[in-house]
Amino acid sequence: MSHNSFGHLFRVTTWGESHGPAIGCVVDGCPPRIPLSEADIQPFLDLRRPGRTDFTTKRNEPDAVRILSGVFEGLTTGTPISLMIENTDQRSRDYGDIAVTYRPGHADYAYEAKYGIRDYRGGGRSSARETAMRVAAGGVARKILGDGIRIRGALTQIGPHSIDRSRWDWSEVSRNQFFCPDREMLPVWEQYLAGIRKAGSSVGAMIEIVAEGVPAGFGAPIYGKLDSDLAAAMMSINAVKSVEIGAGSAVAGWTGPENADELFMQNHKLAFGSNHAGGILGGISTGQDVVVRFAVKPTSSMLVPTRSVTREGEEIEVVTRGRHDPCVGIRAVPVGEAMMACVLADHFLRHRGQTGAGAGFSFGSSVVF
Amino acid sequence: MSHNSFGHLFRVTTWGESHGPAIGCVVDGCPPRIPLSEADIQPFLDLRRPGRTDFTTKRNEPDAVRILSGVFEGLTTGTPISLMIENTDQRSRDYGDIAVTYRPGHADYAYEAKYGIRDYRGGGRSSARETAMRVAAGGVARKILGDGIRIRGALTQIGPHSIDRSRWDWSEVSRNQFFCPDREMLPVWEQYLAGIRKAGSSVGAMIEIVAEGVPAGFGAPIYGKLDSDLAAAMMSINAVKSVEIGAGSAVAGWTGPENADELFMQNHKLAFGSNHAGGILGGISTGQDVVVRFAVKPTSSMLVPTRSVTREGEEIEVVTRGRHDPCVGIRAVPVGEAMMACVLADHFLRHRGQTGAGAGFSFGSSVVF
Amino acid sequence: MSHNSFGHLFRVTTWGESHGPAIGCVVDGCPPRIPLSEADIQPFLDLRRPGRTDFTTKRNEPDAVRILSGVFEGLTTGTPISLMIENTDQRSRDYGDIAVTYRPGHADYAYEAKYGIRDYRGGGRSSARETAMRVAAGGVARKILGDGIRIRGALTQIGPHSIDRSRWDWSEVSRNQFFCPDREMLPVWEQYLAGIRKAGSSVGAMIEIVAEGVPAGFGAPIYGKLDSDLAAAMMSINAVKSVEIGAGSAVAGWTGPENADELFMQNHKLAFGSNHAGGILGGISTGQDVVVRFAVKPTSSMLVPTRSVTREGEEIEVVTRGRHDPCVGIRAVPVGEAMMACVLADHFLRHRGQTGAGAGFSFGSSVVF
Amino acid sequence: MSHNSFGHLFRVTTWGESHGPAIGCVVDGCPPRIPLSEADIQPFLDLRRPGRTDFTTKRNEPDAVRILSGVFEGLTTGTPISLMIENTDQRSRDYGDIAVTYRPGHADYAYEAKYGIRDYRGGGRSSARETAMRVAAGGVARKILGDGIRIRGALTQIGPHSIDRSRWDWSEVSRNQFFCPDREMLPVWEQYLAGIRKAGSSVGAMIEIVAEGVPAGFGAPIYGKLDSDLAAAMMSINAVKSVEIGAGSAVAGWTGPENADELFMQNHKLAFGSNHAGGILGGISTGQDVVVRFAVKPTSSMLVPTRSVTREGEEIEVVTRGRHDPCVGIRAVPVGEAMMACVLADHFLRHRGQTGAGAGFSFGSSVVF
Repeated sequence: MSHNSFGHLFRVTTWGESHGPAIGCVVDGCPPRIPLSEADIQPFLDLRRPGRTDFTTKRNEPDAVRILSGVFEGLTTGTPISLMIENTDQRSRDYGDIAVTYRPGHADYAYEAKYGIRDYRGGGRSSARETAMRVAAGGVARKILGDGIRIRGALTQIGPHSIDRSRWDWSEVSRNQFFCPDREMLPVWEQYLAGIRKAGSSVGAMIEIVAEGVPAGFGAPIYGKLDSDLAAAMMSINAVKSVEIGAGSAVAGWTGPENADELFMQNHKLAFGSNHAGGILGGISTGQDVVVRFAVKPTSSMLVPTRSVTREGEEIEVVTRGRHDPCVGIRAVPVGEAMMACVLADHFLRHRGQTGAGAGFSFGSSVVF
Repeated sequence: MSHNSFGHLFRVTTWGESHGPAIGCVVDGCPPRIPLSEADIQPFLDLRRPGRTDFTTKRNEPDAVRILSGVFEGLTTGTPISLMIENTDQRSRDYGDIAVTYRPGHADYAYEAKYGIRDYRGGGRSSARETAMRVAAGGVARKILGDGIRIRGALTQIGPHSIDRSRWDWSEVSRNQFFCPDREMLPVWEQYLAGIRKAGSSVGAMIEIVAEGVPAGFGAPIYGKLDSDLAAAMMSINAVKSVEIGAGSAVAGWTGPENADELFMQNHKLAFGSNHAGGILGGISTGQDVVVRFAVKPTSSMLVPTRSVTREGEEIEVVTRGRHDPCVGIRAVPVGEAMMACVLADHFLRHRGQTGAGAGFSFGSSVVF
Repeated sequence: MSHNSFGHLFRVTTWGESHGPAIGCVVDGCPPRIPLSEADIQPFLDLRRPGRTDFTTKRNEPDAVRILSGVFEGLTTGTPISLMIENTDQRSRDYGDIAVTYRPGHADYAYEAKYGIRDYRGGGRSSARETAMRVAAGGVARKILGDGIRIRGALTQIGPHSIDRSRWDWSEVSRNQFFCPDREMLPVWEQYLAGIRKAGSSVGAMIEIVAEGVPAGFGAPIYGKLDSDLAAAMMSINAVKSVEIGAGSAVAGWTGPENADELFMQNHKLAFGSNHAGGILGGISTGQDVVVRFAVKPTSSMLVPTRSVTREGEEIEVVTRGRHDPCVGIRAVPVGEAMMACVLADHFLRHRGQTGAGAGFSFGSSVVF
Repeated sequence: MSHNSFGHLFRVTTWGESHGPAIGCVVDGCPPRIPLSEADIQPFLDLRRPGRTDFTTKRNEPDAVRILSGVFEGLTTGTPISLMIENTDQRSRDYGDIAVTYRPGHADYAYEAKYGIRDYRGGGRSSARETAMRVAAGGVARKILGDGIRIRGALTQIGPHSIDRSRWDWSEVSRNQFFCPDREMLPVWEQYLAGIRKAGSSVGAMIEIVAEGVPAGFGAPIYGKLDSDLAAAMMSINAVKSVEIGAGSAVAGWTGPENADELFMQNHKLAFGSNHAGGILGGISTGQDVVVRFAVKPTSSMLVPTRSVTREGEEIEVVTRGRHDPCVGIRAVPVGEAMMACVLADHFLRHRGQTGAGAGFSFGSSVVF
């Protein structure tokens, strides 16, 4: 079952609420003898951390992760790795309004309809705070995958403003607070988001995650497809409403010849003429870059008043005053990277389990694109 | 593990290759005492059946399903239901070319890279033929869900031609061979597809699946979200490259106020002003229609020659002469419906298991949209 | 979930009732490129087959297994292997009595209490006939494990008559119809069982399964222990009421020094002075023989009248006239072997997945006992 | 996968090493709106706590459990419940010997053979300390089951001294430090264990767990049998070497008439003449008491010297000086009770999920024994 767990051989179980004493996760199935310390995980958490940029929530959490088990003398032991982050900046205040009001677009109503109870403080379990543990688990996953697999993400659209893909520069991504690969888009986004923030509004975004160096063979037909697991992983991130692999929804408009990724030989190796498939065919990686895109909706926590109802059925106008992200999609970039890492680590172990990993055919192990 | 299984409490395991003696599935976890016979399943298979329309493959399979277990005197017994369809129209012919050639866009290369072996006859396990068993399992799932939940699908785009949503008419869907809800689009698609077929080409499509009557409360945070499972389900269908919930990727361009589904009271019931969320908030159903969309790529099996390589690394031109669908997306409509049914049946049982199903809060049980 | 599935990476799902058209199973996760045909599986089925000996049921089933998928040109492809056996000797007769009567010791009442319905023909799903598919799956598991791991079983007790372990001779097991390793016990058992059969009674038995050549390292703490999975596997066999590992329940009466398996060096290899642990420490194999024992109760289907009630609450005397085993434990030997094979195959793949199988420490790879 | 998780709908994942900063577990799937606080769990931990009696380890751990998530205003919310216990009495000392020595009967060698590394401090992950989290999870499980199901355990044998079952008195169990139901056995065990402790030795034990009030219908054929899951649960407890249901291994020696639990009517209810089946038929509960027994081996940590080897292959004599239990089986009683509670809670939810729990046939809901 998978209520709060993700993955099979590399399996992550998260717990914790936004305003409880702590949040945490248990990472099970990690191979033994991998060097691991908090320093391997913390940098990724710092990229997701609230309060890092002008356009993310002002909640100030150091998000200092602690390893509580599964590591001995600096090496993983193969037993479960417990990671924990203490919540330190839960503001004590009166939650009276939120406690009885359903915010449009929020999980308030859905949780109450399901469970008949909800921890309304800061969104409880449905808070984006939970994604910190995905990022922590992703740090462990990256160590399993090793340096041969490189996972990077970028923001490609904020509201109506999409980047120009011809200007894509990965080195630019780490230089700005937007994870933006198009330097010329920066001033546009800055000005636009300043307006959104000033209006007490919020806006959606599009994120793209790319994994280079993934060997051919990860994934499994039919319900363990690599793209199927990636879709589940990305769609499980708060506020995500779409997932695309490679060319994604564009393929609905294409003909076969337009869509075909031609094959040829280059330096005695198999090469592809394009990567519309996003590195996955029949649910199995081909050796090309694995490419995933997902849309994040604008957060429903905003100062703009919205019509809603209370638990007692009274009609009201909702205004959410807390500390929130005008564009929650920005912080979704390291979360998307982490989910990519977790899915790949799981499929690496699954592939090795079933096939012995490379004991067989290896023609495609080095692919040229 | 989920290589070839789908779902948890309602669990489907499929098996079989395109040109083997049969294909089948085992449906486990079905509640007892549900009336079930082949006649409950066959109509859905008939809708997916090859050879049904002018624009689907000419392979002629009756696709007659047999129930081999789990049903006694017309009622399910709670034990596994084994369903089987014999393959009858596998053409015996020389597969010599396909056996050593990697078709661009096909799983040929990926399977071989993973396993070092593949059943190349008709695509083997990667053939869309596997989806017949999804449709069969979906027939059982519908019986579990009962008449209160209605699942319907439609084709909304073929190549460059999208329907006009203002003309959406569900009653039209069953009257044409395209599952098209826009009557005025029919002649356009017919003419366009005739051209595609004549050119030996293929084209992509967009499919939308809608489930009405889903009670609030299905789904579970965080990794058992209803939308996360729907994303996995749809992305596991052959040739699917994107999945969207509700407004989908459009939300990346929207502001908070544009995206908000307002809440109000109508006849003493909770009502929503719109359904951008696609019926799911925080991973849990809200009582609104559950809406999913996915793009299907053009099949790579076509007469248009494409550059490729053989297993031995020789460059060639590939032409696939078999019997194939110019628009495989058409037959994906009943498959998408079936996956929706399977996901909902699973979440119904999971919800009932954890909560006792409605023993608690039931305010949202009747939602007006 | 595991209602009708067993194992994780090597995963078996069975289906079928005693008097349905067929029984079958789907074996998922099998590594690719393993030579496999019906001839690899049939011999094990023949050993379990009803009608083989004087002291098993007279139902005459050829139990001819068919491979319906997952094998191509004599090799496994890594996709699910569907195995099926048609039921050929279901006697058509009036089941009126059984339909409304709860046989003491049978699953009749329990099934009805759970499901409100049961297929009463020949025991339906609760029939020992299901174990044929375990044996079939075990045949596949043995191919994965290879010749280095040898799995054998024997009957050590029938009713009050236990073998003398000092006379244990494996070569004797295949020479008699009881799987008995003690030649001198044969006439005792024959005479005793003849009496049981004549009296229309039945009797219990004890079975021991030994796996030689299991490398150190199979199993996983804490809930994936090798012995925990073996316990579940054996206890899931019909009529089994106890499972013991190594010295088993005897350890309750022992002191630490009596129980200790001393370690020493022999020819520069690690050696054990005894094997009270049954080859498993901390849930992980040590390289010694893995030893499991289980008790099978006497079948409750017998001619001796027993007091019972009908579904309507009427008190009656039950006499079961069908074709039944006076000692069902005899046919449990190949079933126990098969479950051992399935558990070991699963743990082999799981161990390889997590650790790379032998990439690390290998001191214990060759153990002397 | 189940390396460190147990159960399906009620799912427990444990983490932590004996000498790490803390141990903990995540309980997922708990129904919402159940009153829960630390006070519901702590009493069971106190019964298992080291240092409670004269005959358990002197390690002094308060074992104070904290609830870190999943409970809001005193009620469960349906989200994961994180439980944690800090380790406070790990003695800092030189572990040099243990670090390189394989203790006979310990998991030292097996862990190292599997992982190539082990946390040797206090047994690391293989320490019985992990069982504290089972007891904590069991406390939650009991709240789910409610007062209608009563779970109790007792010690029935220490070394050669078995209780007289005719003197069984449940009220006696809570009055002595041995969980002994036979008052006359107390002085015998006291004197015997004093001798064992003085000799620096250890001894095995037999434990019996009984659950009263379990409704008919829990469990599922074939691989989700209630007895199969109980066998896995008990065998996963450290040092357990056998599991028996009801009459257990005795059935190997019985005839059908001896084994049969006759059925009759009493006050218009179904009643059983005996309970050799231990409350389970065909893997499904019958409404009778569910009875499980398991043997615990003597701990291998003792002052009696035992022959062994070091990691480098040097032969030595091992003496374990730490703080250990002369009869570790005593503290296994609350652990066995907890595992029974966890298995029953899981099957309650699974049964409710599939069948709607009592929506159908309910004849057997009140059983007289």
